[in-house]
Parts: sequence; C-alpha cells; structure tokens
Amino acid sequence: MDTSNFSDFLPLKDVTITGGFWKTVFELVRTNVIPYQWEALNDRVPGAAPSYCMHNFKLAARITHPELDYGVDIPAGHKGPVFQDSDFPKWLEALSYTLFQHPDKELEKTADEAIDIVCNAQQADGYLNTYYIINGLDKRFTNMMNNHELYCLGHFIEGAAAYYQVTGKRKLLDAMLRYIDFVDSVIGPDENKLHGYPGCEVIEMALVKLYAITKDEKHLRLSKYFIDQRGQEPLFFREEMKKTGAGNYWDGGHLGLQYYQAGRPVRDQHSAEGHAVRGPYLYSGMADIARLTCDDGLYQACKDIWDNIVNKQMYINGAIGQSEYGESFTFAYDLPNDTIYAETCAAISLAFFAQRMARISPKGEYGDIIEKTIFNSILSGISLDGQRFFYVNPLETLPEASEKSRIYHHVKIERQKWLGCACCPPNVARTFASLGAYAFSICGDTLYSHLYMGMTAKASLGGSEVKAEMKTGYPWDGGIEITFTLENPLQFTYAPRLPSWRGTYSVKINGRDADFKVNDGFIHIQREWKNGDTVTINFDMPVTLIRANPKVRQDIGKVAVTRGPLVYCLEEKDNGKGLFRIYVDTKSKFTFSFEEDLLGGVIALKSKGKKLEDWKGNPLYKAEEPGESDSYKEIDLTWIPYYAWANRDPGEMAVWIHKMDS
Amino acid sequence: MDTSNFSDFLPLKDVTITGGFWKTVFELVRTNVIPYQWEALNDRVPGAAPSYCMHNFKLAARITHPELDYGVDIPAGHKGPVFQDSDFPKWLEALSYTLFQHPDKELEKTADEAIDIVCNAQQADGYLNTYYIINGLDKRFTNMMNNHELYCLGHFIEGAAAYYQVTGKRKLLDAMLRYIDFVDSVIGPDENKLHGYPGCEVIEMALVKLYAITKDEKHLRLSKYFIDQRGQEPLFFREEMKKTGAGNYWDGGHLGLQYYQAGRPVRDQHSAEGHAVRGPYLYSGMADIARLTCDDGLYQACKDIWDNIVNKQMYINGAIGQSEYGESFTFAYDLPNDTIYAETCAAISLAFFAQRMARISPKGEYGDIIEKTIFNSILSGISLDGQRFFYVNPLETLPEASEKSRIYHHVKIERQKWLGCACCPPNVARTFASLGAYAFSICGDTLYSHLYMGMTAKASLGGSEVKAEMKTGYPWDGGIEITFTLENPLQFTYAPRLPSWRGTYSVKINGRDADFKVNDGFIHIQREWKNGDTVTINFDMPVTLIRANPKVRQDIGKVAVTRGPLVYCLEEKDNGKGLFRIYVDTKSKFTFSFEEDLLGGVIALKSKGKKLEDWKGNPLYKAEEPGESDSYKEIDLTWIPYYAWANRDPGEMAVWIHKMDS
Repeated sequence: MDTSNFSDFLPLKDVTITGGFWKTVFELVRTNVIPYQWEALNDRVPGAAPSYCMHNFKLAARITHPELDYGVDIPAGHKGPVFQDSDFPKWLEALSYTLFQHPDKELEKTADEAIDIVCNAQQADGYLNTYYIINGLDKRFTNMMNNHELYCLGHFIEGAAAYYQVTGKRKLLDAMLRYIDFVDSVIGPDENKLHGYPGCEVIEMALVKLYAITKDEKHLRLSKYFIDQRGQEPLFFREEMKKTGAGNYWDGGHLGLQYYQAGRPVRDQHSAEGHAVRGPYLYSGMADIARLTCDDGLYQACKDIWDNIVNKQMYINGAIGQSEYGESFTFAYDLPNDTIYAETCAAISLAFFAQRMARISPKGEYGDIIEKTIFNSILSGISLDGQRFFYVNPLETLPEASEKSRIYHHVKIERQKWLGCACCPPNVARTFASLGAYAFSICGDTLYSHLYMGMTAKASLGGSEVKAEMKTGYPWDGGIEITFTLENPLQFTYAPRLPSWRGTYSVKINGRDADFKVNDGFIHIQREWKNGDTVTINFDMPVTLIRANPKVRQDIGKVAVTRGPLVYCLEEKDNGKGLFRIYVDTKSKFTFSFEEDLLGGVIALKSKGKKLEDWKGNPLYKAEEPGESDSYKEIDLTWIPYYAWANRDPGEMAVWIHKMDS
Repeated sequence: MDTSNFSDFLPLKDVTITGGFWKTVFELVRTNVIPYQWEALNDRVPGAAPSYCMHNFKLAARITHPELDYGVDIPAGHKGPVFQDSDFPKWLEALSYTLFQHPDKELEKTADEAIDIVCNAQQADGYLNTYYIINGLDKRFTNMMNNHELYCLGHFIEGAAAYYQVTGKRKLLDAMLRYIDFVDSVIGPDENKLHGYPGCEVIEMALVKLYAITKDEKHLRLSKYFIDQRGQEPLFFREEMKKTGAGNYWDGGHLGLQYYQAGRPVRDQHSAEGHAVRGPYLYSGMADIARLTCDDGLYQACKDIWDNIVNKQMYINGAIGQSEYGESFTFAYDLPNDTIYAETCAAISLAFFAQRMARISPKGEYGDIIEKTIFNSILSGISLDGQRFFYVNPLETLPEASEKSRIYHHVKIERQKWLGCACCPPNVARTFASLGAYAFSICGDTLYSHLYMGMTAKASLGGSEVKAEMKTGYPWDGGIEITFTLENPLQFTYAPRLPSWRGTYSVKINGRDADFKVNDGFIHIQREWKNGDTVTINFDMPVTLIRANPKVRQDIGKVAVTRGPLVYCLEEKDNGKGLFRIYVDTKSKFTFSFEEDLLGGVIALKSKGKKLEDWKGNPLYKAEEPGESDSYKEIDLTWIPYYAWANRDPGEMAVWIHKMDS
C-alpha cells in the first residue's frame, strides 16, 4: 500500500452546505425527517407501522431501575425486531449532523432526555441491549449470528460519537465506552472468550470512527479482531449453532454462511456475496482496517470486491442487491429491474465503502459512485415531503405484478409511512445530514473535490488555512464555481473530480483557461493560489443514452436515459400504461427544461418514441405473416429524474426502455 | 346448453396406437416408464428420491392386519408427503391403459399383488388412507383443506376403474365403492355431516368416470355436491381452521382460499386462479357436471375460465402456472419464461379440461390445446429414455441463475431421477398410455378426429360399425391418411380437426379433391362412405414464427419458432452460451431436415441470426456514442423441438428469441 496516497476527508464541522439541491434536501431532513422520525420512534405516527424503539428503552430502563416509571408496563415485553435499538442512535447521529450546521436547543433537549432513558437501561457491567435486558441477560451473546447485539452497539458508537463531536457531551459516549469494555471482556482471542463476530456488520467501521476520537488502541484492536476472525475455522456461527442446537435458515440455502459474509476468511473473499447491506458495511470496515494497519492482503480483497460490485453487480443508479431472498447479491451481470431488491440501506452502504476506498487512494471512481448513489438510489428512498420511505427501490414496476405475483411482492409502488424493519429511514437521514463529509479530501498538498454542492469549507493545507466557497446549479447544470479565501498566496493542487458522465468541459481560473492535468479521474490544477482566485468548471450536461453490457440479459435491446449525474425514468402518469411497450427513438432529439412546479422542481426531458399497439381481436399468439409487421403509434415521452418517481399517482415506472434501432 | 352437440370420445379399448411418433412414446411408457416407476414406488431406484408409497401401504396393511408381515417396521411410520398414496393408483391407471393394447400377465400379477396389499390396508368401515391409518384415524377428515384424502381417493377411483375396465377384476373397484360409501356417510348436505370438499381436486371428475361404469346416481350426486358446495359461505376451510385453531399459509397471502379455488362459489369463478393443477382438475369436474346435469351457469363459468386460460394465461407450448409460489396462476398476460412454474401436471390437467369441453361442444380449439400440450408441455416432462422427469418446465434457462438466484431455484436444468413430490411422472405415464382416448369423438352422425396418430379405431355410427385406420408422419410432416372399413356403404360426416397452425392444406378422397366445409375448427366431409374409402389430408408444415400479444411484457421484441404442432427452442449445446444475446433473422430462410441420430430422431431447423458481441474492456455500462452501434456476429442457429431439450449436456435453453427487425 502506498501510504502517500492516504487522504483525509474534511470533517463535517468544517463543511457547511449553503445552497442548491442538497441544501433543500438537508433542510428537508432537518425540519421534516428528523422530527417525523422522532415521532415514529415513539410510535406516534398515525397509520404507520410502530417502531417500539423508545418503548423498549423505557421498559429496559424500568427493569434496570425499578424506581423509574416511563409509563411503560413490564408485561408489554420487548416489541419489534431484535435490532430495533439501532434506530435511536441512527436518529441521534442524523440529528447531530444537522446540529453542526443548525444548533437547535429544543431538539438537543429531546436528545438528552432520550439519552438519559437509554443510559438508565445500561447494566452495571456496561451491557446495553433492550432485547436481552428485557428477555433475560443469561442469553446474551449466545446468538451473535442473528441477534444483532454488536450491530446495535455499532450504531450506538456512531451516534454517541457524532453527538459528542457536535455537543461535547460525553454521557452516551462514556456509556458506550463501558459497553465496549464489557464486550472486550467476553469476546476476543483469549481462550476463555468467545471467538465471535457480529452476524450483521457495522461495528467494525464504528470502532474505527471511535478510535479516531479516543486514539485508544483497544478500539482499533477490537475492530481488527472482528475482521480477522470472521470466517476462520472452526466457523464461529457453526459452533454457536452446535451449542444452541438451532438450525439456520440461510445456512440451508445457496448462500450458506456467506449470507453473513462469514463462510470463509475475509481475505479470501473477492466478490460481493450475501446480504447487500451487511456486505458493504463489512467491506467498509475492512477498508478502514486495511488503511490503518497497512494490510495489503485485506486491501486486495477490498479492491477485488469493489471491482466486482461496480463492474458486475451494480445497477445503473448505484443500487445494489439483486435478490429479495437474503436481501442479497446474486451473481455477475444478473441485474433484474423488476424483481430487484436494491434496499435503500444497500446504496448507502456502498457510498460508505466508496468513501473508505477513496481514503486509501483518491480516485475519481469513488466519488462517482457516491454521487450516483446519493442522487439516484438513496434519495429515491424518501418521498419529496420527507415522510414516506422505500425500503426496496425497483427500476421497473407493474402494479398488478406487485399485487398478484409473489416474486414482486416486495416491490411496493408507494412509499410507506414507516417500516416494521425501519433501518432505511434513519440511515437516509444520517447520510443526507452529513453529505458535507463526503465533499473534500486532502492528500499531501492536494485538495480533492469529490462532490459538487453549494457549500463553504475550510481546510488546512501545508499549515495554512484555506477557505473555499462553492456555488453550483448541480445537478441541473454542470457549472461549478469555487472561490478560495487565503491569508497569503499558497502553493497547492486543487483537484476537482471529473465525473464519469461528463461530455466536453472547460476549466477556467478567474475567467481564463486554466492549466491542468487529468489523473485518476481528477482535474489537477497545481499553482500558487491567491486570495479570491475563482475556478469555474463547466461540465456539459447533454442527455446521454446508456446501454448495459451484453452480458446483462435483462437490459438487452434497451437503453436508459441520463443527464449529468441523474438517471431518468418514465412514469405511467406522464406516459400512460404499458411502459414495456414503448420504444424510445434513440435518434430523436431530447429537449429539456426546468419545471418549477413539477416534483419540487426538476428538469424533465422530452423525446420521441413509439408504442406497440394492441392487436385486433387480441389473440394471445399470432403467426408472423410475410410482409406484416407490428403496428406502432408515435408518442411523446416525458422523462423525470428517477429519484422523484412515485411522488404522484401510483403506477408503472421504468428506467430501461426498449430502443428502436436495435 | 345444446345437448345435440354433446359428443362421446371413443373409449381406449376401441383405439389402438399402431405406429409413428406416439407409438414410440407409448412403447417407452410401457417398456420403460411403467417398470421404472414401479421400482420407484418401492424405493428401489438408486440415487433417486424415495417415494415411500408402497412402504406406507405395507405398513398400513400390517396395522390393519397385524398377522401380515411385509417386512415393514411399524416404528418407521408414515413417510413422504401426505398425498403419496395417489402414486400407486396413478401407476396402476397407466399400466391398465397399456394392457388394453399389450396384455402382460407378469405386470398384471404385480398389480394384483399390490392391490392385495392396498386392500389389506382398508378399514372395516371402508376408509383407506395410509397417512391416517398409520397416524391415527381419529384425525381423518379434520384437515380436508390440506391433507389430500379425497385427492388420493379420486386417483384410486380412476386407477380402480381403469384396471377393472381392462381386466374385469373388481377387487380394487369394490374396495373403492366401499370407501366412497364411507365418505358419503360423513360428507354431504345433511346436517350431521361435514359440508366439505377436497383442498386438492380430482375426485370430482373421477366420480364422473365411475358413474359411467356404475350408473349409480350417488356417485354423480357426490361429485356434484363437491362442486356445488365449494366456496359456499360459511367457507368450509375457514370453519375447519376455526376447529383446529390452525392458520393457513396460503390464506395469509394474496391467493387466499382461491389457492384452492375455494374462496367463492365455482359458478362465480370466471378466471383461472390459484394452484394451476388443482384449478383445471376442478374445471374438468365442473365441465363434466355441467354436461351431465345440463347446468348452464356452470358451463358459462367453464367457458369463461377456458377463455381466460388459453387466451390470457397460457404459454405458447400449452404450459400453464406462471408462479412457483402456490404453483399457481398469476394474472392475465403475465408469462415469465424464466421464473415460470409450468408444472408437467398442470399441462396434463389442461388437456383433461380441454377434452371435457370438447365433449360438451366439439370445437377444434380443444383438440388444438390437447395437441399443443402433449407435444410441447407434457412430453417435455420426461426424458427420451423415460427415466428422468421434470416437474417444472421452463421456457428459458440460465444455469447460473438456477444456482445463485432464489427466484430460479425451482427451475432445474436437468431432469431428476424421481421427485420427492412425484405427482408428475405417473401422470405423464397415464396420459401417454391413454392418448387413444383423445383421438376420436362421435356426435350424432359425425366422427371427429381430434388427434392425428398412427392408429386403428372402431366406432359405431348410426348402428353400424366403422373401422378406421390412420397413418401419418405427424408431427414431422402433415400428411394424414385415413381409410374406413365398412360392411355396407354408410352416410356419415367425417370431421378431421383443422389445426390452428395449418398453412395451406388439401383434402382428397381416394385421390380426388374432396368436397368439404369448415366449421368450428373442423373439416366436415359429409357423404356416403364406402368400404376402403381413403381420406388423404395434407397440412403444409412451414416453419412459422410466432409473436406474443403486446400485453405480454416478457416477450416484447421476441419470436418463437414453431413447425406444425411443435414448438422449437435453442439450446446452448448447439448455439453456444448467451442465448439471450441472439437475434434471429426473421427474414432468413429456415431449412429443416430429419436427423435420425439426433435426440431420438427429430426434425431440426436451421436459420440465420446474429449475436451481440462482447464489449471491449467489458464495462458494465456505456454511453451510446453518436454513430456507434453494437457489434454483432453473424451466426447459424440450430433449433430443436422443445420437448427434446435437456437430453444432452445441461445448459442454457430458450424458446423466445429476440428478433432482428423489431
């Protein structure tokens, strides 16, 4: 590993989203999603699936401290899935990120009160998981394969760290440090300890985040242990099953323990397998540990898996996870658009993995994937009003199929108010509340721009502070302007990412063509920068038709339409029923205009196409008669950004459309 | 209902298959399938899933008659699915049908010995079902929804009736008459009886077959009761669940009790829903009862359901049942080729339904569907050597998908030696052993030909005996010659079916153009026939490309290739991997030749096509550059009859192929 490539992203506290597309989303998260989700965690959203998250904490607190009464009956018991604890720290993490930009004493008070409840549930030995506190501590860490204790702890670490970083308040962080010490005392390489690791990953990267705060080697060591131990013989999960006598649903299927990425050592894993959120959470942790320990073998596995995902198993919109069964990856070039899973959390996990790969070596492809996911496969998980959510993000829908064919049941055509398994909504919130942390990184004397947003940032380059202000009409237009504020002239390289989708582009400094080199997906502008220097980049944003590799059988003869970073789709609302009968005229001119009143303001595209017409008499099959050909109707097509689909009347939607010239 | 249209098929005893395609299949069934299946029912096929069928009968016989010892241990218990009893009578039925044409004292002795065992298991009150005899008679008829007692009885009636008809031996038939009397005493409209009906149908049509032998009204009445009572409120299966406190897997899903076609009265059912074998078994019984009781409402339901199946839910090869979930129908125009279910038994059940509709009103479409299923969706269920079986018959396979994606797991790319749920193999055997019974029907003074095979038949028309001998090269060529042997000249109409696939055709009598009319899918030749008159029909058999209705999203832009009654496919063995990347040139000339050494002797087709080539550098997605187009390789395509697929190296197969001129 070439440690000279290691780069650090500017922390969220140093990047403020100030305007444009992502500011709108940030404000939606801050003013709408976060308060709404707090109601959801407290089961106060009418008509929504209950969360039971705070219910469980109150009950566990009362069991731990019988003198407390939060109005929760002990006989009610633990409710909801075993991993429901995690929803609170994910919400807290999202809240914390918004507090950096927008202090809010009211919400902070809500958080403090909730933290009090949570900490009251903590056991004297540091343990803190409501499922086992309520159902019996004797069973804790007996089913690490399925029962998500370390997953919940992982999210708690992330939430506690974020809240500490923004508020300086240590209460939850300290509670988590005690919990980690407890975990450290029961899991690890020593003979008398469990040689285990989580069935659902996340704690690996969480401990690395914590280590950045504590600098305590034991936190790094524990993360590394989870990674090194995973998949080693004798397989821990098999041993666990032997002890409990329980079988395992996944182990009996084709995924086996690779559902958990736990069937073989992680360094022997070179393609993405199993659960498509757990996988990239693990791969993110692997990348973190590879970087921190300069582990070439681990890095090679990360690179191979990255390559396997983005070049063989990723949808055009950055979505991953092709199969509902196991919410999992399937195999290379298998990319069904209709029976797809594409969990919102999976796209988020891919963005996490991308950022960690960029930390090891800054390449444009990582920011490309982050951009692709945030615009096209994460944002689709939330409605324009911030109050409804998709767990599954299809690229093609047919309402009757979702209703009447089992293989489409998971494909909803309307976002839900809340989800019984609500991992996605708070995950979306924490991601969009922290986009600033994906914007810039520094490697040596180079300042990299990975994402384009309206924002201000401050960075330390060669000991000097550099302030940057970026303005952009992104994603609607490709004009980006960045102005540096410097005390003194400073020699450094500014390296804005060259998006993979770009057509022609120009780079100017203070209005004059700039000297630059292109390397690894970045424009490198090396010079002595002066106060007020302004870089103006213009990426031409033509509509681009995309084809999928011929090995992708589901997309043969079809095209997808993109413009800049956005993937577009057709909806029934604009184009009528039977989207699968439409052929897009790839030679037709695509026109576009910003429509302020459409879907919160989007650029919609118009083009020509034709639609296969009904047959006379409607026979199910018909012989091709010589000279006879199918009858088509010329139609106008209206394309909207994929992220905005399903915000009007429910109906058909499709991203990949037959093309006329095949 | 117009009773003057009612027609009777010539019984199997009066039709002898003498040569050609179906004689080969008949001999395969007789010499190979039936002996092989007997071994399977006795768990003596190495490497095959055990049946336990005869094991269970021996055990039940020993429990009933403790003095008997068939070498079966009582602690072994009942084994295999709850419906395993049905395999024996289905085997017996198949055997019986072959005995008409080919008496075999050895096999008859085997059957008699097995019947002795079975009858020894019968209870004093007439009851006979090994599952409950072994597991406790107190529970019998408490789970009619799921436990298949009446289904097994239905098959026993059919097997016993067939064996009686060919051998005159009444032992099993009498045993079944006693069992039916017992059923009659516990199920029926009387207040003190169960108002139930089977969860898995078949007994309805079986009782009608029995009624034809016994002329005992109670057999007809019981069948009619099962049909009339089905789906009446209060729903019997709901009441049954209330009593047992058990839930029901299907009732919780989108199929509900319509999985069993039991969610509403049958006369209110106008589309095929639920399980795709049970459904057409019921519809067959409905058609029988509609005919025998002149019930217009019931007939209307049958006609509507028939129309729904063949015009909206049937695959090009006559296969039905689109979904693995519930082995069920889904919805109109939903015809996935790859996640398809298309159980062999489902195609058989459709042929049953077709024949019963033809009995009410002789239309060519019924024989068309029988022909389509026997050549293309039933025959595919069995290997060319008669020893391996498909339960599921896909129209498109990708081995990696079957292995690595859950929605394809049921799609096997190799036939199995035997099946844990082995309804299909004996069903195939009994169908092909009795094809003669689908060949001719008589309505008034008209003799209809529904199927073309090398055979002899005798019929009574207007009180005179007519003998007919048919010779044909079908399905390889469309020449058919039928010669009548008559004592005296006789006025009648001969009505051979005009296949829906026919192109041009000629009809000659004794070498001279015949006078005929076409009506309802039949050629009607009305004349005074003399001894030795020979009708020669020649259906031109060009290769025909078929398109599916534009509402079938899965087949848009694709064609299927047929010739005469046969549907063709491409296999990897002949055409390489990546069949989904092939475009067939619909303008290219298809050539064909009979290849004696290929797949037992078939006409294979050759045509031209092109194949999408790999991309340089193999990116997952690529922007369409102006002027750039996909690169194709010209290729020669080899097509084989679909029924013969998967008899060589396992691999890809596809019926619907992209077409070049879309």
